[in-house]
Amino acid sequence: MIIIGIDPGTAETGIGIIETEKNSQKILRIHHECVKTSSKDEKAFRLHKIYNDISCLIKKYKAEAMAVESLFFNTNAKSASAVGQAIGAIMVAAGAHKIPVYQFSPLQIKKILTGYGRAEKKQLQSAVKKHLKIVDIPKPTHAADALAVAICLALKD
Amino acid sequence: MIIIGIDPGTAETGIGIIETEKNSQKILRIHHECVKTSSKDEKAFRLHKIYNDISCLIKKYKAEAMAVESLFFNTNAKSASAVGQAIGAIMVAAGAHKIPVYQFSPLQIKKILTGYGRAEKKQLQSAVKKHLKIVDIPKPTHAADALAVAICLALKD
Repeated sequence: MIIIGIDPGTAETGIGIIETEKNSQKILRIHHECVKTSSKDEKAFRLHKIYNDISCLIKKYKAEAMAVESLFFNTNAKSASAVGQAIGAIMVAAGAHKIPVYQFSPLQIKKILTGYGRAEKKQLQSAVKKHLKIVDIPKPTHAADALAVAICLALKD
Repeated sequence: MIIIGIDPGTAETGIGIIETEKNSQKILRIHHECVKTSSKDEKAFRLHKIYNDISCLIKKYKAEAMAVESLFFNTNAKSASAVGQAIGAIMVAAGAHKIPVYQFSPLQIKKILTGYGRAEKKQLQSAVKKHLKIVDIPKPTHAADALAVAICLALKD
């Protein structure tokens, strides 16, 4: 199964695509990148770019499921609204391709990958490297976070 | 100018389309409706429907600008995130058609339409009737609210 993981944000949305095999521990990194949009552009233009880029990647890599990092539970309303808008644009892309979407909170991601909900960023990145059997931490950080949430879905199934 | 007004929500998104003439007080109601989605369906499917229906209406009525009711300033993070997702899907539709988006808060809408930021729902609905020179309050309520925000943009220009 091909999974597209997303770390949502209006300025930077991390994307990590992995492949998993049923009844196998093997997880393969296929692609990772970060969609960036400029604060100089209109919000609608930026959200459309996020939707469009993700839609193209779902199609290109034939993603069959999407894993999205959800909000930190105690976020304030302003940032909840901003991240919500990015998640909305991302979900439209998933809806267009009729693929299921699974959300994981930051706490769940840390717990699934490291066994510890309050793990440090470095511990999480080490876990991503270990699961994907790669030497270097994927860059930029948002793309590594997107791979992390994709791995969560792979381990969940 | 054709303006599409939106009262965003995942379950019900109100839509109101009006036409205004430059240097004229005349505002004409063109169309109003409510896009409904079922809570039984996947969130991504629902957001894609909102995006798709609005995109079709922008195209059908050749809307040149969008007015969206923004969040109430003291909303909690959970509802800010949910409404944010609907606004995100709506903005993708505006971005796809390259039309500008203007946001008005509930307080601004009341102030512009009735002159009073704490106006009651009935006063707002009367103002909508007056501005559009129509006899009955448009139904459902979300569609009337969408016409209200569209009128705000018309009066602003």
